[in-house]
Amino acid sequence: MEEKDFEALQDLLENNRFNVLHAVLKEMNSVDIADFLDGIDDKFLVATFRILPKDVSAEVFSYMDTDSQEHIVRSITDSELHRLVEDMYIDDTVDFLEDVPANVVTRVLKATDAKTRETINRFLNYAEDTAGSIMTTEMVQLHTYLNAEQAIEQIRKTGVDKETIYTCYCIDDKRHLVGILDLKDLLLCEPKTLLSEIMDDEKQIISVKTSDDQEAVADLARKYDLLSVPVTDKENRLVGIITIDDIVDIIEEENTEDFEKMALLNPSDDTYLKTGVFRMSKNRIIWLVILMVSATLTGQIISRKQALLADFAFLISAMPMLMGTGGNAGSQVSTLIIRGLALGEIKIRDYFRVVFKELRVAFCCATVLAVLNFLRLLIVGGGDIPQYLIVSAAMFATVIIANIIGCTLPILARLVKLDPALMAGPLLSTIVDAATLSIYFAIAQFVLMR
Amino acid sequence: MEEKDFEALQDLLENNRFNVLHAVLKEMNSVDIADFLDGIDDKFLVATFRILPKDVSAEVFSYMDTDSQEHIVRSITDSELHRLVEDMYIDDTVDFLEDVPANVVTRVLKATDAKTRETINRFLNYAEDTAGSIMTTEMVQLHTYLNAEQAIEQIRKTGVDKETIYTCYCIDDKRHLVGILDLKDLLLCEPKTLLSEIMDDEKQIISVKTSDDQEAVADLARKYDLLSVPVTDKENRLVGIITIDDIVDIIEEENTEDFEKMALLNPSDDTYLKTGVFRMSKNRIIWLVILMVSATLTGQIISRKQALLADFAFLISAMPMLMGTGGNAGSQVSTLIIRGLALGEIKIRDYFRVVFKELRVAFCCATVLAVLNFLRLLIVGGGDIPQYLIVSAAMFATVIIANIIGCTLPILARLVKLDPALMAGPLLSTIVDAATLSIYFAIAQFVLMR
Repeated sequence: MEEKDFEALQDLLENNRFNVLHAVLKEMNSVDIADFLDGIDDKFLVATFRILPKDVSAEVFSYMDTDSQEHIVRSITDSELHRLVEDMYIDDTVDFLEDVPANVVTRVLKATDAKTRETINRFLNYAEDTAGSIMTTEMVQLHTYLNAEQAIEQIRKTGVDKETIYTCYCIDDKRHLVGILDLKDLLLCEPKTLLSEIMDDEKQIISVKTSDDQEAVADLARKYDLLSVPVTDKENRLVGIITIDDIVDIIEEENTEDFEKMALLNPSDDTYLKTGVFRMSKNRIIWLVILMVSATLTGQIISRKQALLADFAFLISAMPMLMGTGGNAGSQVSTLIIRGLALGEIKIRDYFRVVFKELRVAFCCATVLAVLNFLRLLIVGGGDIPQYLIVSAAMFATVIIANIIGCTLPILARLVKLDPALMAGPLLSTIVDAATLSIYFAIAQFVLMR
Repeated sequence: MEEKDFEALQDLLENNRFNVLHAVLKEMNSVDIADFLDGIDDKFLVATFRILPKDVSAEVFSYMDTDSQEHIVRSITDSELHRLVEDMYIDDTVDFLEDVPANVVTRVLKATDAKTRETINRFLNYAEDTAGSIMTTEMVQLHTYLNAEQAIEQIRKTGVDKETIYTCYCIDDKRHLVGILDLKDLLLCEPKTLLSEIMDDEKQIISVKTSDDQEAVADLARKYDLLSVPVTDKENRLVGIITIDDIVDIIEEENTEDFEKMALLNPSDDTYLKTGVFRMSKNRIIWLVILMVSATLTGQIISRKQALLADFAFLISAMPMLMGTGGNAGSQVSTLIIRGLALGEIKIRDYFRVVFKELRVAFCCATVLAVLNFLRLLIVGGGDIPQYLIVSAAMFATVIIANIIGCTLPILARLVKLDPALMAGPLLSTIVDAATLSIYFAIAQFVLMR
């Protein structure tokens, strides 16, 4: 939908043309309707929500942002709320309840029947970001003694409430997960074929436990191209599934978390524009302070070389450039390694291969940089040839060391079960800065103070 | 599959126990078989590939890495090659052919029949990373005058060769895309219902053109929770689909590209361990050189203040810490803005909201940092109180400026159609460094040289 389409709808709303609006909304995609509702004034929200076709209102609700959802729940009647919750998938209800104040949660739970309430409560108890907290219970469960025809008949009868019918789960009498079946296989085989003959059996089942991290779910779905991942409890009983649309959201969430960690930000669940100033400051300040205090080290390295600096002022002017280049080289390496580790392309055991490769790459880059830097200094001027040589030699050494540190720290972090994403540019620069200055002054002292 | 399972299979291979191996492979997932084949010695590769069950060998092949694929194609007979290509989905064949030398492409094309060859050739002509280059032609196409029962019958007959049957595409006599239909709706409705009654009609169709960028495909699938995205030509004729498993791969690919651009690396298609040293050096060196040369500016700012620095040596020792903090604050902001832009959460028109928010956040962070820095200097020592005040005031100003630059550059990049991801930590640090030093010396001069 374009901006101008939304504006036309807004006009209808402000002129009270609800019957036209109703006709337009009926033809729209639920995602676009939710976008529209999120953008309109609160005073129109409930009235517009009420004119939505009954069969899409629950879906639209689950795509809306938390503020609008909360406003609607606070404004509709108990019986409307009851129908809404019944029509929503469990995972969407739980998603919503996790983000609203306790009194809204209480009201929603009161408006639902006992069985749904019990399920919701159980889900709310799973730790955040675990498979249990994001799964849904609306899946197709088939007994293995059915044949294909009977199975399809059962899907026809019960499928309308299921979040997906395309992957079916075979269970035994005690609800243990014993097989997985694509609807495609079910539809294409002979009608009398027993499910046990065509299902993927236990050895081939790919599943997760309720307590598994959501990242593990996403990794499995990506690797094995699954449309949904089954979730089992400790006794291997099927308790839920996670569908690919939620998995795509998890993948983006985990990537965002990596981006944020790499910039040493505390990860935030909200979007940028929705996060408050104080909360945002808190997410940033801790690491800024830690790194600032760590930079005491570079200050002291410089202080100790006062004599050298007083005599050769040119050396000072080259410091930022050297530290900058070291930091940039380190960022490049660590980004590649962090990403490789996240996607499973690099494993801890590859460390020596990685170091060996980085040494060779560093040698190429360092040589080019040192030579170009020497030429640059010749042109810009400000010192003499020995000083230019010192700066270029320091640059060579800095790039080599930055590359080694840049590939070692993320792998080391993985080894001690820290998140490798923390070992990115900012943290690395602070460490590489200190190394750079030490080398620089050592070379300068060796050459100039003989 | 665990490491040790692969080792057990390797043992079977080395002891020529092919019949046992065959039995084990038959029970394994295609992805795991491909992983196993990628890891074994080339001399065993073709023999092992040949004992795979016929119904999975094409799928296994499409999950293997390019080196192994090429080795197999070079070693099997023409008739084996013919069968392999017939069994593979078009998009997987095209993926493979895009990565191998021309003589392998020629051999594969020779081994296929005229119709497949023509399709492959057409696909190879689409520009890289467009919808056309990643789509497949194996989709379910239904005429709108069918009823549900007839449609299901057609799917049963032709579905085995389709990459997905879960989303069906309705076409008219000229192959124009006129409707989209979930298999779920088809299966759950009355058998005699006409497709035209239950399909999403033209106004609701979400589709892409062959020339659209793959990122746009991923954005649509993520936003609208689609299992596949239809691809049409300029005349709105249906020419292919892109399925969710490929879209998940695109999402990870686009994220990797953003991570790489943010570290100012030229994006690379290969995994870390597969990219050669020379190629890798080339991907990194350009930006390292550009940034190094830009740092000439910081050198010159320092040179001009020689007198100041000679008299107040303490000021020099605080330089790295100040530049580091400015760079870190800028990285944090730009990461959030880049990510927000990529996910569509921040738009260009939000610029003033963003700046206003950043000013407030910067004020909070800068105050905390300036105060803590003053205390730190009191403890560490090395200068006097006026000098500590100068450093803390400069720190305050630096953080404010870093935040403004950090949110402005990515949005500015988007405005002029550059990739915002380039405006991340490394590039930003170089700019912020120069600003920091200028402010620092201005404050120092004002206080000390009165």
